[in-house]
Amino acid sequence: MAVEGGEAMRNKQVIFRDYVSGFPKESDMEVRKSAMKLRLPEGSDGLLVKNLYLSCDPYMRIRMAKPDADHVNSFEPGSPITGYGVARVLESGHPNFKKGDLLWGFTGWEEYSLITAPETCFKIEHTDVPLSYYTSLLGMPGMTAYAGFFEVCSPKKGETVFISAASGAVGQLVGQFAKLFGCYVVGSAGSKEKVDLLKNKFGFDDAFNYKEELDLNAALKRCFPEGIDIYFENVGGKTLDAVLLNMKLHGRIAACGMISQYNLEQPESVHNLMNIVLKRVRMEGFAVLDYYHLYPKFLEMVLPQIKEGKIVYVEDTAEGLEDASAALIGLFSGRNVGKQVVVVSQE
Amino acid sequence: MAVEGGEAMRNKQVIFRDYVSGFPKESDMEVRKSAMKLRLPEGSDGLLVKNLYLSCDPYMRIRMAKPDADHVNSFEPGSPITGYGVARVLESGHPNFKKGDLLWGFTGWEEYSLITAPETCFKIEHTDVPLSYYTSLLGMPGMTAYAGFFEVCSPKKGETVFISAASGAVGQLVGQFAKLFGCYVVGSAGSKEKVDLLKNKFGFDDAFNYKEELDLNAALKRCFPEGIDIYFENVGGKTLDAVLLNMKLHGRIAACGMISQYNLEQPESVHNLMNIVLKRVRMEGFAVLDYYHLYPKFLEMVLPQIKEGKIVYVEDTAEGLEDASAALIGLFSGRNVGKQVVVVSQE
Repeated sequence: MAVEGGEAMRNKQVIFRDYVSGFPKESDMEVRKSAMKLRLPEGSDGLLVKNLYLSCDPYMRIRMAKPDADHVNSFEPGSPITGYGVARVLESGHPNFKKGDLLWGFTGWEEYSLITAPETCFKIEHTDVPLSYYTSLLGMPGMTAYAGFFEVCSPKKGETVFISAASGAVGQLVGQFAKLFGCYVVGSAGSKEKVDLLKNKFGFDDAFNYKEELDLNAALKRCFPEGIDIYFENVGGKTLDAVLLNMKLHGRIAACGMISQYNLEQPESVHNLMNIVLKRVRMEGFAVLDYYHLYPKFLEMVLPQIKEGKIVYVEDTAEGLEDASAALIGLFSGRNVGKQVVVVSQE
Repeated sequence: MAVEGGEAMRNKQVIFRDYVSGFPKESDMEVRKSAMKLRLPEGSDGLLVKNLYLSCDPYMRIRMAKPDADHVNSFEPGSPITGYGVARVLESGHPNFKKGDLLWGFTGWEEYSLITAPETCFKIEHTDVPLSYYTSLLGMPGMTAYAGFFEVCSPKKGETVFISAASGAVGQLVGQFAKLFGCYVVGSAGSKEKVDLLKNKFGFDDAFNYKEELDLNAALKRCFPEGIDIYFENVGGKTLDAVLLNMKLHGRIAACGMISQYNLEQPESVHNLMNIVLKRVRMEGFAVLDYYHLYPKFLEMVLPQIKEGKIVYVEDTAEGLEDASAALIGLFSGRNVGKQVVVVSQE
């Protein structure tokens, strides 16, 4: 059943070269061409897929580090990078999928992949939206925003919400969900262009460029004279420290990520944790993995919102596997504007 | 109705002299004798009480600081210290109390007090236990341990629990509650005597003297080779930082207090907050104020446990208002062994 009769095909791959410390470089990855038989191994219940879109996500930096006792799911040196992507099924050994199906889930940074855990992939049923959205708005980042805001933050109408890295894949959605829910929403980002997006495209009530604020505490006091009910944490470090000074009683912090810390040999220090006691704040780390059972409910909410134009989304697209490593690394200098996607193939 | 026919009586008081920064000293308070008419003001719905026992609690250090925007309930310079205590009602303008009743709640550090918010006081119904217990095991610290452990920590049988300041007013109870609940319990304290108490009197599975550990992370790894499910946080700073390295997936931290930080001009830095994200940890600050509706349920659980000897309790008693300021300040050097109580009057 394999395409091309099972003969060996070129498979371009983005190979992870070795564990990274400090800031990752393009040369930590390399594009290689290998040969691959486009056929499922005999008896496999996996999937042979053609990758269409790949997702660049900040958490991937954590997987570049050398594994230790606390952290074991590092990339394997010499093997392709893995991550979320959108793919078309070429051959299926699994009852949930058939040839021609589109799916999103964990795949490799390569043209063709063998997916050995198809039960972790989601079949794409709605194709009247851009397919790349299944790496972003309708995929892992979208579910992260949804679960983080509605499940972890326990929002109430009228509350004040602060989002860091607010124009990113997750932040732009958290802000829009919070606005639609009836909250007052402020975001921070690292350029004028991003701040403009927050205010003018995503409808945030206010936004600031953290690089231009001499005093983050003062910036937050200006935006939240009464304090912050909900902080959606994407960056950590100095921003978190300033936020802690501005939390309201019974505030909540959904700790989604701390991108400012991922490339540091020594994490930055945080001093203001006493505010967690004084303000009775709940700070909760979460991972989208624990919330995928809500995916149907999420789609039910968000698909109509997309069609009615109530939710908009900005992606930053890199073309081809050759540009994938630069795209991934760009996340850590804030090069991307919106969700960073890599197009592997338009079909 | 006033005792002594309403004539002016001596009222010994512990006066708060002025706002404190750094380590508090005995001389930040002074004992003064004033005159007080033992009569409720006309039309008052308050209570005139005779104070019997006063409670020394770490949070009182926070009230010694100069008030700022975030923190407004400081002690008033020139007025008596206020805090939890046990008292007998001499005269009542409130329907909940009558002359002769015993109560616990917020009162003054003085022989006689006028309580203007009797609705925040609890009438003492069970007197077949030491009355001082209503400043400790059966009062605010007891409720703090109960609410913090059962409501904030969401414990499950068999989980591992670490408690800092574990021989203190709250810690000794959290450990016993956790043991009775079926957890594995380890505590840290600041002397050999306290560590012995934890192991031999309170039944902790293990305990260590944090002052004798060169590496807190290593001490925790030794006690919790599989990691910590629940951390009951009383101290903050370096201990918190080491705990963060040892939390298990989906661990919980109940942030009750951070006594190591209260006397510092600059709070210590914490570096390991990324573990909140990586381990999906929930860290929650709480105050017993939000849980007093559970007090009847708490009593129903704990009174039989006391009578059956399943719960034991250690108090450290200072005699008289003259010794009150030293007792309070002793909390911050760990002078007290067990809950620090001040006896104002045996009747």
